[in-house]
Amino acid sequence: MTVKKAGLTIGGDLGGTRLKYGLFDGDGETLMEKNVASEADRGADHVIRRMIGLFRELIDGSGRVQQVRGIGLGVAGLIDGWRGIVRTAPNLPGWRDIQVKATMEAQLRIPVIMDNDANVAALAEFHFGAGRGVDSMMMITLGTGVGGGLILDGEIYRGTGGLAGEFGHTVVDLDGPPCHCGNRGCIESYVGNYAILRRFFEKMDAGERSSLSGMVRESVSVETISLAGEKGDQAARATFKEAGEALGVGMANVVNLLNIQRFVVGGGVAEAGELILAPAREALYRTAFKDSAKIVDVVAGVLGDRAGMVGAARMAKMSL
Amino acid sequence: MTVKKAGLTIGGDLGGTRLKYGLFDGDGETLMEKNVASEADRGADHVIRRMIGLFRELIDGSGRVQQVRGIGLGVAGLIDGWRGIVRTAPNLPGWRDIQVKATMEAQLRIPVIMDNDANVAALAEFHFGAGRGVDSMMMITLGTGVGGGLILDGEIYRGTGGLAGEFGHTVVDLDGPPCHCGNRGCIESYVGNYAILRRFFEKMDAGERSSLSGMVRESVSVETISLAGEKGDQAARATFKEAGEALGVGMANVVNLLNIQRFVVGGGVAEAGELILAPAREALYRTAFKDSAKIVDVVAGVLGDRAGMVGAARMAKMSL
Repeated sequence: MTVKKAGLTIGGDLGGTRLKYGLFDGDGETLMEKNVASEADRGADHVIRRMIGLFRELIDGSGRVQQVRGIGLGVAGLIDGWRGIVRTAPNLPGWRDIQVKATMEAQLRIPVIMDNDANVAALAEFHFGAGRGVDSMMMITLGTGVGGGLILDGEIYRGTGGLAGEFGHTVVDLDGPPCHCGNRGCIESYVGNYAILRRFFEKMDAGERSSLSGMVRESVSVETISLAGEKGDQAARATFKEAGEALGVGMANVVNLLNIQRFVVGGGVAEAGELILAPAREALYRTAFKDSAKIVDVVAGVLGDRAGMVGAARMAKMSL
Repeated sequence: MTVKKAGLTIGGDLGGTRLKYGLFDGDGETLMEKNVASEADRGADHVIRRMIGLFRELIDGSGRVQQVRGIGLGVAGLIDGWRGIVRTAPNLPGWRDIQVKATMEAQLRIPVIMDNDANVAALAEFHFGAGRGVDSMMMITLGTGVGGGLILDGEIYRGTGGLAGEFGHTVVDLDGPPCHCGNRGCIESYVGNYAILRRFFEKMDAGERSSLSGMVRESVSVETISLAGEKGDQAARATFKEAGEALGVGMANVVNLLNIQRFVVGGGVAEAGELILAPAREALYRTAFKDSAKIVDVVAGVLGDRAGMVGAARMAKMSL
């Protein structure tokens, strides 16, 4: 057992724009962390070869080569974790049924364990962040896409095919806004990055006044809308309120189905903080069954964009 | 182990109108089954006293008094299974925080284990019925209310407070029909008994032709609409189609969240069979993520209204 505890693991989080990775000790403490461009535009082969090189460097540079026992990797996409295959990854162009685990293990000779980015982020917040102290929670990552990772009875719940947690494409309004997935009224069509921007611009087009009215649209981002909202901009606040309300109804669906104790919300859009979380909470408590609503809360994640990497390392640790 | 296997269990299923109960052997075979009025209008004390008397009779009459080791009880409502308390039960007037387990155990001196009716029905279909061969499924009971029971990784999933599975009040349309729970667009507001009747009558009011047009409304039931539909009545068929489509979108939400393998649909409304299941299936496959949709199917339950009782006996058996 002492030997196991002393083992180090690498955690990696591969997204469409950034690759975050680091070396962690048995208690989840960071020995080294890196954040580099993922170079996803250069294709799967390049990205995997590069990751192998970077991880090799990290191991060799640690001075503790023999102690590195496992690699955990979170990838933004549909992941077949058991076989270590990325099925699809909307933000990684050209990735379809890509063998990652086998390729990396053959080169690095260290066991690789994979999962999607929301699942590993959920694991990180559960063990080290905003999810401590509960048995069951859902991590929701609000960004370009809306991801979900479920922890039920203390473990990542993956479902029969490993594809559980797709909260972003649960439907709350049959006649709602079109979603790029082909359906209408998915959570993502209300709270995804593009949905927030679209709603805000619709308000501008309808003549609502905003401190951002004069800005070139290309330079308006969710962040600028969020900052405006914090300063009291009504159009900005209304945009997040509408998004938060749909989010809260989606959360109520999860609570009625699963009777979980906590939602931990992370990702870029979540930086709007209470602008989006307060209306979400209100809609959740209004919509969910009272007895189930009583035991659930909604909090912001505390690990930020490190969550995926930290959780991936933890996942590798747990598999040793 | 042999001793355990020889143990008998009682399974009971208490609903608003009927109490079904029976004595089962270690392999789930029925030794005796009864189906009586639940007399719910006479209040909780009466119902519990009566159940104790009926179960006592069943035990004494079996000639195997010493072998009856456990009692499983499914109740239509929000059940605190661990403490054996019925929190609320919409169809059992006056039931609020009623101690059932403690009262029955004190009188019968046999361990009592409780859960809600959909959970025990799910367990029955999973072990002995339409759910055999899968790891994860959801039982959906379509009646006055719409119940849900989740089996994840081979076990009833109850959630932190024991209240999971409330599929009937997940929302698929924020602007949908009002539901008696206070929200809009819940699954139950599309496929509950009253919703089906309301939709059918709306079609009549709008002048649609139906073989049932001449009937006194009070004598039209979901069953008569279903029979008319089977004979080709277009208004009846459209009613079930619309209900089935909302049901299928709700199923897609479950599939995206939980990546389960099967829906087993039971309850009175489910007797409309493919009239409702075919459009549900179509909406499910159209709406859920392709990779998750691939592994899921929708089938009718095979245990009918015996499912609750059979599952309750099984639950008691598993707890021995």
